[in-house]
Amino acid sequence: MLVRAGRHFLQIPGPTNVPDRVLQAMARPTIDHRGPQFAALGRRVLEGIRTVFKTSGPVVIYPSSGTGAWEAALVNTHSPGDAVLMYETGQFSTLWATMATRLGLDVEVLEGNWRTGVDAERIQGALEAQPGRFRSVAVVHNETSTGVTSDIEAVRRAMDAAGSEALLLVDTISSLGSIDYRHDEWGADVTVCGSQKGLMLPPGLGFNAISDKARAAAADARLPRSYWDWEDMLASAPAGMFPYTPATNLLYGLAEAIDLLHAEGLDAVFARHDRHAEATRRAVEHWGLELWATVAEQRSSVLTAVLLPDGHDADEFRRIALERFDLSLGAGLARLAGKVFRIGHLGDLNDLTLAGTLAGVEAALGIAGVPIRRGGVEVAMERLAAS
Amino acid sequence: MLVRAGRHFLQIPGPTNVPDRVLQAMARPTIDHRGPQFAALGRRVLEGIRTVFKTSGPVVIYPSSGTGAWEAALVNTHSPGDAVLMYETGQFSTLWATMATRLGLDVEVLEGNWRTGVDAERIQGALEAQPGRFRSVAVVHNETSTGVTSDIEAVRRAMDAAGSEALLLVDTISSLGSIDYRHDEWGADVTVCGSQKGLMLPPGLGFNAISDKARAAAADARLPRSYWDWEDMLASAPAGMFPYTPATNLLYGLAEAIDLLHAEGLDAVFARHDRHAEATRRAVEHWGLELWATVAEQRSSVLTAVLLPDGHDADEFRRIALERFDLSLGAGLARLAGKVFRIGHLGDLNDLTLAGTLAGVEAALGIAGVPIRRGGVEVAMERLAAS
Amino acid sequence: MLVRAGRHFLQIPGPTNVPDRVLQAMARPTIDHRGPQFAALGRRVLEGIRTVFKTSGPVVIYPSSGTGAWEAALVNTHSPGDAVLMYETGQFSTLWATMATRLGLDVEVLEGNWRTGVDAERIQGALEAQPGRFRSVAVVHNETSTGVTSDIEAVRRAMDAAGSEALLLVDTISSLGSIDYRHDEWGADVTVCGSQKGLMLPPGLGFNAISDKARAAAADARLPRSYWDWEDMLASAPAGMFPYTPATNLLYGLAEAIDLLHAEGLDAVFARHDRHAEATRRAVEHWGLELWATVAEQRSSVLTAVLLPDGHDADEFRRIALERFDLSLGAGLARLAGKVFRIGHLGDLNDLTLAGTLAGVEAALGIAGVPIRRGGVEVAMERLAAS
Amino acid sequence: MLVRAGRHFLQIPGPTNVPDRVLQAMARPTIDHRGPQFAALGRRVLEGIRTVFKTSGPVVIYPSSGTGAWEAALVNTHSPGDAVLMYETGQFSTLWATMATRLGLDVEVLEGNWRTGVDAERIQGALEAQPGRFRSVAVVHNETSTGVTSDIEAVRRAMDAAGSEALLLVDTISSLGSIDYRHDEWGADVTVCGSQKGLMLPPGLGFNAISDKARAAAADARLPRSYWDWEDMLASAPAGMFPYTPATNLLYGLAEAIDLLHAEGLDAVFARHDRHAEATRRAVEHWGLELWATVAEQRSSVLTAVLLPDGHDADEFRRIALERFDLSLGAGLARLAGKVFRIGHLGDLNDLTLAGTLAGVEAALGIAGVPIRRGGVEVAMERLAAS
Repeated sequence: MLVRAGRHFLQIPGPTNVPDRVLQAMARPTIDHRGPQFAALGRRVLEGIRTVFKTSGPVVIYPSSGTGAWEAALVNTHSPGDAVLMYETGQFSTLWATMATRLGLDVEVLEGNWRTGVDAERIQGALEAQPGRFRSVAVVHNETSTGVTSDIEAVRRAMDAAGSEALLLVDTISSLGSIDYRHDEWGADVTVCGSQKGLMLPPGLGFNAISDKARAAAADARLPRSYWDWEDMLASAPAGMFPYTPATNLLYGLAEAIDLLHAEGLDAVFARHDRHAEATRRAVEHWGLELWATVAEQRSSVLTAVLLPDGHDADEFRRIALERFDLSLGAGLARLAGKVFRIGHLGDLNDLTLAGTLAGVEAALGIAGVPIRRGGVEVAMERLAAS
Repeated sequence: MLVRAGRHFLQIPGPTNVPDRVLQAMARPTIDHRGPQFAALGRRVLEGIRTVFKTSGPVVIYPSSGTGAWEAALVNTHSPGDAVLMYETGQFSTLWATMATRLGLDVEVLEGNWRTGVDAERIQGALEAQPGRFRSVAVVHNETSTGVTSDIEAVRRAMDAAGSEALLLVDTISSLGSIDYRHDEWGADVTVCGSQKGLMLPPGLGFNAISDKARAAAADARLPRSYWDWEDMLASAPAGMFPYTPATNLLYGLAEAIDLLHAEGLDAVFARHDRHAEATRRAVEHWGLELWATVAEQRSSVLTAVLLPDGHDADEFRRIALERFDLSLGAGLARLAGKVFRIGHLGDLNDLTLAGTLAGVEAALGIAGVPIRRGGVEVAMERLAAS
Repeated sequence: MLVRAGRHFLQIPGPTNVPDRVLQAMARPTIDHRGPQFAALGRRVLEGIRTVFKTSGPVVIYPSSGTGAWEAALVNTHSPGDAVLMYETGQFSTLWATMATRLGLDVEVLEGNWRTGVDAERIQGALEAQPGRFRSVAVVHNETSTGVTSDIEAVRRAMDAAGSEALLLVDTISSLGSIDYRHDEWGADVTVCGSQKGLMLPPGLGFNAISDKARAAAADARLPRSYWDWEDMLASAPAGMFPYTPATNLLYGLAEAIDLLHAEGLDAVFARHDRHAEATRRAVEHWGLELWATVAEQRSSVLTAVLLPDGHDADEFRRIALERFDLSLGAGLARLAGKVFRIGHLGDLNDLTLAGTLAGVEAALGIAGVPIRRGGVEVAMERLAAS
Repeated sequence: MLVRAGRHFLQIPGPTNVPDRVLQAMARPTIDHRGPQFAALGRRVLEGIRTVFKTSGPVVIYPSSGTGAWEAALVNTHSPGDAVLMYETGQFSTLWATMATRLGLDVEVLEGNWRTGVDAERIQGALEAQPGRFRSVAVVHNETSTGVTSDIEAVRRAMDAAGSEALLLVDTISSLGSIDYRHDEWGADVTVCGSQKGLMLPPGLGFNAISDKARAAAADARLPRSYWDWEDMLASAPAGMFPYTPATNLLYGLAEAIDLLHAEGLDAVFARHDRHAEATRRAVEHWGLELWATVAEQRSSVLTAVLLPDGHDADEFRRIALERFDLSLGAGLARLAGKVFRIGHLGDLNDLTLAGTLAGVEAALGIAGVPIRRGGVEVAMERLAAS
């Protein structure tokens, strides 16, 4: 029996800390997924999740990770060889592009520097340069690997300005329920999400919010699909049912999590994330370390990626944080490996847990020999106490 | 607050009753899926699940339902247009065939009467009639819609006798962990399973056990795939890791469930299922009702499908059982709708819960006006008490 | 790891099966027992429990077993040497009398045969024979050792008829929440209860409902007391507080349990217990065994004590039931040891769990070689199906 | 639904944070307290708890709060009018003395200033001044109201030096499992504890560790007792049983908690508490506030009481900490009300939760207008990082 006293600090940018009430909801006995009690649950979550996506249209829920929901978004809307315009914001946009390529799509990636978000003008330019070429534009709202948020509304305006008929696919895996997102108002066609970030659930559920246009596009999309097929899902949804066995116990948790979000109030949830992010950034800047995201207004409210000075190994630092302080931080991914670490400050989080986190980061940086100015926690707490 | 006193009787053929220990395991805090604590969990379940499939080869675990594991088995081993020989044993074999067709495969179905299992000779005949045509043979070990079990070893022998190079794909969704199954010894190439039956978990995990031959076949299988791709899974598995976020809390439950199976002993588990099935059949026969499965040795140890006399609506009977006795029974599916009901007696079940179930069935049959001879519970208990 | 498949059948007359919702409520994090969140909980349970006792007066809740609540009832209302009139209905009335003696009271016990309830006329007689002698009359509403219920209202009338000023102390440990009980209407002065029976909680809480007269009597009662002192409890109760640290997590469960009782409806709860008791008695009579309680209208709705024929060891039978069928039944206590077994049918129970229980009893009786007529479960189910 | 994001900081000096594993253990189904499965549990906890008290003698476990265990210690060892020598260390020693008086004992209290621990010389003096007068000496090991720890070994030596035959009763309610305590080695006769502090359980269990001498003394102690009587408990203990229904689910938690303490190692547990206490004191001193405990070596490792400057209301400060930072701190009790607040740093606690706590204290002090020097968290973390 490995034992560490006290509660683990899970401050990666997801999976996030699951509230006790959600964990308990998941521990209820499994029920008949074809019976009336399940139907009530099914309707509750299928209705409820729409309020989080801010859509009046349907949201499909898969037993899958967010990666599965990426695949669902692609296979329901594309035929083999269809062109997709994607924008490289970091490792997750890259993985999504790789997936699209593996599924047989013709992917054009607008390269990025991983430190800034989507430049909507470049999307407009690409669309205008090749009118009618792209079946879809796919972007990541909050790039989990870099802590950079992109302006989805601007992407929509750029697409409209270019007169594009392309579908807009948006990954909100690490933003939904933490940063304001508006599927309908911003004109997204498919919004992709997973359960384990702002929705405060364990991993295991994937989501697609679907516009009318996307659904219509699915009718002539010929990528082979069965598990991910929207129509089967949409046919059974009005009855609160699913075409195959759903992940019942995660749905129990989802119902509870939606209630929790609304009990706090979505706007209050977003404001909380903004506060925590700002406090975190103040600590980082006080330490004298570099925020990886270079454009202030693009800095994410759900995580902060921090660049270590040359010669310092971010993974060694993270190992110290875990071993000495039972604190899990996010690694730098792919080209950022060893250079960057990521502090998750999303989901079910409060001021003092953030303070404890920052205290752990500061102390572990010290032990790792990274030169910093002490006092970051104090600076962060001053910010939190002021509001 | 809808309240019914006492514990619900969930006696559908899956999802099954989840042991408290498994539910509690699932309620533990979610952890970093890239950290050392997760790696230990990952190795534990990836190793452990092999003992249940009885394979020395790898088993891939997806965040998905069993339906997803069906899709995974197909897309990893086939190219568009590949021929698959399937055998119609009931609704689930039919759904799998439909899926294969939707994925672009050339499906040949050996039609069946839904009351008997796979006739291995017919498979041999089909293979011999069209040598080299079939990339794979796909059969269901235990047909959940009918309560009929098929002899997988015989299928393997038939394929060998026909000199077929086809892959053998087997669905054990409702048999694994309840009825003896031997992936290696019986020569299966891909064995498909889900978490919510004999594994005593909520739904949300899908499994593929993979033979060397299947893995080699994947190398030239060209159906587009990404989420389901085995190679990504197999590459990260030795480290206890997954290529995308796994369903951590269900994996906690899986580790516990595997321990429970081995603590009872797999052979004891199988014998328990056999006993419960036999007792159930004795009750049904005592009542004077017809067992849907016509061949004695094919009658399933995990569920019993019962045919109601003409003029009696099985769904109305089930409604009564649920409303009056808080007892969930399985419906007749597709062509069996309204004619048949199914008693699940698999998973975490003991004699007295089975007795309560049969008492509820007998009483609800009476209320529904189905003519029966009373005393089925007594007959069943005599059987159980005798061993 | 000892493992038995399926759910244990806990059919002793308490502790009873705790609903999942109550168990989950108890697993919430402990809170500051002096803070505002606790105050809300405290008020909720202190108010709520009064509806179950049917009193407009206060109910005190101790961190204790029911035995502690017995002691509380005595020490708050008596001075050393005070006379108490008790009525022997079985082992629990006897234990309460022993306690009273140990606490220095002058206990007069009206002897009984353990098969019938309180004879109110004898109480009247005793009171009239020694006017003014008794400080209190103490009786057990439902004698858990024998399955006999007494008419508390009749006791009150008898006391009034005798012109007695004595306090009426009633033990409802195994009746409250299962059999109708009315503290105010029936004129009880102190009603004693514990958490682990009809209240569907684990053991660990003791209760005293207190009449104005009892509280006034406490003012001049001189038995030494501190932990059990009502006044400290009553002083802090309006604020939802307790004079020393309360059993917070059991109080979480209590709040949930009270909600469950009211959601089902107290009258429905009582009717359910009546039905289950009657069905159980029909099975016992069908088996040809003797109901220990000899007076029909005194037979308890919460448990049924069954006498085995001479030469049969009830404990050996119970051992078989436990070993073979994972069924816990109540032992014969004291003079009933080895002769009687007790079936609990109280708390969170439904028809099919009762059917399973009776099936287990019938089968274990058979294995134990007790001569019975088979078919008791069927008879019981017929009764249950009829209503 | 009142909702606050994130986990509450319960940093009162008990109840303490209960580990998830203990909470889950408590949520297991209740079992028959007279059956073999319970017997195994009973033996496990009755044996296991002795290792925490460091005694080879028996430990009795009550369904009660720690206050009940105080009463048990007194009523088992005294007769009415017996003299008890007590030492005033704070509010809890005072409450214990009040209890003793209410129970009819002749209590002599050595008055203290609430800022220092037991002065063993004064005890020796009192014993020598009235040879043979005192049946017992009762002291508090760790005074929860003041954060002062007393030297129990010194008390024993003083009693021996005085040639006293008195029993030594020790309250370890807030020290056991957090600060080293040795029942046998230090010559305690009765050691009193409760479940909700260092044992990391919810409240609801009381403990008495009993020396041979104490048990012998009980034989002629004539205070009325029944619920608390040791002999009934000791008679059933070898079988793992209890004379009345035990608090089964809390015992599940106790078994788990004992395992957790030993898995970490008692010495490691004590060292962790020492570290956290020292870090906390450094923060307090950095802030420029006064530690209530005046003697350095008596400062408690489980809590720190802090004196606010004149004119500042500690309860208003605590209200701010709770409202703004979801942080529960301990109030000043009795004569310390409004002047002192108490930081609990005991039980299941780690460095970062302590850091979060201190950050909350510092910020709330600022908001409350208490003049402090900022930077206490940093100072505390430096201490923690250094070891």
